[in-house]
Amino acid sequence: MAVYLDNAATTKIKKEVVESMLPYLTGQYYNPSSLYSSAAKIKEDIERAREIVGNFINATGDEIYFTSSGSESNCWAISGFCHYWNALKVRPVIITSTIEHKSVLECVRDMVADVYYVDVNKNGLIKLEILSKLLNNISLWGLPLLCSFQLANNEIGSVQDIQKISTIIRQHGGLLHVDGVQAFGQIPIDVDEMGVDMLSVSGHKVGCPKGIGFLYIRNGTTISPLIYGSQMDGKRGGTENAPYIMGMAKAVELCDVSENKIREMQSKRDYFIGCLEMECGCKLNGHYPHRLPNNISVTFPQNITGEALLYTLDMSDIQISTGSACNSKSIEPSYVLKAIGLTDEEAMRTIRISLSDDITYSDIDYVVEEIDKAIKLIET
Amino acid sequence: MAVYLDNAATTKIKKEVVESMLPYLTGQYYNPSSLYSSAAKIKEDIERAREIVGNFINATGDEIYFTSSGSESNCWAISGFCHYWNALKVRPVIITSTIEHKSVLECVRDMVADVYYVDVNKNGLIKLEILSKLLNNISLWGLPLLCSFQLANNEIGSVQDIQKISTIIRQHGGLLHVDGVQAFGQIPIDVDEMGVDMLSVSGHKVGCPKGIGFLYIRNGTTISPLIYGSQMDGKRGGTENAPYIMGMAKAVELCDVSENKIREMQSKRDYFIGCLEMECGCKLNGHYPHRLPNNISVTFPQNITGEALLYTLDMSDIQISTGSACNSKSIEPSYVLKAIGLTDEEAMRTIRISLSDDITYSDIDYVVEEIDKAIKLIET
Repeated sequence: MAVYLDNAATTKIKKEVVESMLPYLTGQYYNPSSLYSSAAKIKEDIERAREIVGNFINATGDEIYFTSSGSESNCWAISGFCHYWNALKVRPVIITSTIEHKSVLECVRDMVADVYYVDVNKNGLIKLEILSKLLNNISLWGLPLLCSFQLANNEIGSVQDIQKISTIIRQHGGLLHVDGVQAFGQIPIDVDEMGVDMLSVSGHKVGCPKGIGFLYIRNGTTISPLIYGSQMDGKRGGTENAPYIMGMAKAVELCDVSENKIREMQSKRDYFIGCLEMECGCKLNGHYPHRLPNNISVTFPQNITGEALLYTLDMSDIQISTGSACNSKSIEPSYVLKAIGLTDEEAMRTIRISLSDDITYSDIDYVVEEIDKAIKLIET
Repeated sequence: MAVYLDNAATTKIKKEVVESMLPYLTGQYYNPSSLYSSAAKIKEDIERAREIVGNFINATGDEIYFTSSGSESNCWAISGFCHYWNALKVRPVIITSTIEHKSVLECVRDMVADVYYVDVNKNGLIKLEILSKLLNNISLWGLPLLCSFQLANNEIGSVQDIQKISTIIRQHGGLLHVDGVQAFGQIPIDVDEMGVDMLSVSGHKVGCPKGIGFLYIRNGTTISPLIYGSQMDGKRGGTENAPYIMGMAKAVELCDVSENKIREMQSKRDYFIGCLEMECGCKLNGHYPHRLPNNISVTFPQNITGEALLYTLDMSDIQISTGSACNSKSIEPSYVLKAIGLTDEEAMRTIRISLSDDITYSDIDYVVEEIDKAIKLIET
C-alpha cells in the first residue's frame, strides 16, 4: 500500500486542475496580449482567474500577479523592494527571521540593504519582544523598511501570529511581506485582517503542477519588477502561462479552509502524533496548537536517523521527508531545527510528515506499523 | 478557413509536446528535490532534458537553466550580472541596442549601471562601427561589461551577425548575452561558434506552452540568481516545472533547422512577400536576406492601418499582428519600426505576419485574397 506523506514538499496534482488546464494546452493557445478575439478571450479568462484567487484572500484581482513559483514571489517581493529603493540611491532596511525559506534567506543576504534577523523561540515562533526592541533600537531615520516572515514554517509547521507582527511593524511605518506558501489552502488567510502588504503563494502545494504561484501586492505598494515586460499591468513580464493560471484558479476553488475541514485534519494529525509519541518514543517539534493542521515534525530517540528511516520506508512505498524538500540534498543538519534548539544529532534524527486530505486513520495505523518495522530493521 | 499567422507571438502547442508532459501532470508529481526513488527519477529526467536542450546549441546540460520564460531569462542575465557587481560595490557597463525586447530595455533602464545604446541601420542591423567606436571611446577602466543583443528581432525579423559582434566585444573583455527567443528553432544556434556567453530562449515560440524557457550560461560566467533557492545547482530557485521541462526537451527534439527546412520556409515567405508587394503595394521592413525564415513585416500604402486590417482579418479567422504581441496593447507606434526610420504614420500602417511549418502555398493565396478584400472593405 502506497502512502504519500510529503505534501509539504508537493501535492498530487488534482484531476479537476488538470482538466481545467487542458483546453489551454490544446486549442486555446493564443498569446493573451494579442489583439484578435480568440486571444482577448484568454486575457479575460486570466483576469477572471486573478479575481477568483484575490477573493480567496480578501484582495482584489488587480492585486494578484501570477508568478512561476513561491520562490519567485518571495524574491520578487524582497528584491523588488530593495531595487526600487537602490535605484533612488537609498539603502533600505530588511528584517526577517532565522527560519525562513531558503529563497528568502539567500535573497536577503545578497541585497544592498541593512538586514536584521529576529530569533524564534523553542517552538519556532518569532520573538515579538525582540522584534519590538529591534525596531525601537535601530536607526530607521525614515529609511524604508520591509519585514519578511513566513505565516507557517515549512519544516516544523509553526504558525506565526501575523496580525500581531503586522501591528508592530506598522507602528514603525514598515511593510510586511508574508511567505504564505505552506499555509495557503491549509488555514484561512485574510490579507486585510492580518495586515499583510505582500503575500507569496505557490500552486503546487495545493494540487497544481510546479511552475505556478502568485504574489499579492496591496494596491499602493510600489516595488520594482523582477521580470520586466508589458504583461500583468507591466509589473511581471513573460507571456502568461494560461494553462497553469487556470489550474491555479481551479485549485483555489477547491481549497477548503472551513473550520470543520481544519478540525478533521487536526484530529488525524494529532492521532498520528500520539501514535508516534507512544509507540516510537518520538518528540514533537514546533508549536502546539499553533501549527499547520497537516504538519508533523518529530525527533526519534536512539540511533534512528531520518535519512535511514526515509530510505527504509521508501521501499514500502511510503514517502516522508527529513526536512524541507528544498534542502533535502544538503548534508548539513536543518538550520530550522537548529534555530529551535535541536543539536545537530537531534536534527539528523528528525523527520517531517505532511498529510493530505485523503489520509485515513487506517493509513496512519499502517504507516506507524511500517515505521516500527523500519526502526527494528535499522537497529539490527 | 482559419489561418494562424502570428507564430512570432506564440505557436500552437505541439501534440507530441503535450503527450510528453502528461505523465508529469498525473502520476509523476513528486518534488524532484525529495530523496525517495520516485522523486529521484524525475530529477534524472530533468537532467536528461537539460542535456537534450544543451546539445541543440552546442552546450552541455549543466549550462542550461530552465526558467519560466524568455523574459525571465533576459532579466536574469542582465540583473544577475548587474547585481553581482553591485554587491561588490562596482557599477558595471551595459551596452544594448534600441530595438531589443521590452524585457531587456525596461530591465536595463532600472539597473545601477552605465548603459549605452547602439543604433541600428535602416534594415535593423546593429551598426558595428558604432559599437566598435563606443567601446574604444568609453572609459571601461577595467569595469565589467555586458552587451545584450537579440539574435533576431521580434518585429522585423532582422538577424544580427552575432559572431562579428562577439569578436568586437571580446576584444574589450566584455560578455555577450544574446536574446535568442525569436531565432531559436528557426535558424541554427551554436553558442561556441557564435561566441555567446548567455542565451535566452522561450519555449512557447517552438510548440511548448507559455511558462517555460531557459537561460544558457557558459561555464565560468558568474551572475547572481534572480530567483534564489537550492534548485538548478543553487542558481535558479523554485521547484522544477517537470511537465513543461519535458515538453521543452520534446519541442527541441522536434526542432528542424536543417538547410532544406529553412530553404522551404524561406521560399514560402518570399512567395508571400512577393504577393503582398505586387498585389497590395506593400513595402518590406527589415533586412533581406538576413531575416528570419518565417518573418514578414510589411507597410501598407494609403490609409490602411495595421489595426483595421488585423480586426477585419480576424473576422475571417486569420490572425496577424500589428507589431509584437508584447506591445500590441500600446497605442504608441512601434519603437522598433521608428528605430529603422519609419514615421509614426508608416508604423501604424505596418503588420507582422509570422509563418509556421504547416503553411501551404494555397493558404498564402487565400490570405492574400482576404487581405485584398479587407483593404477594399476598409477603404469604403
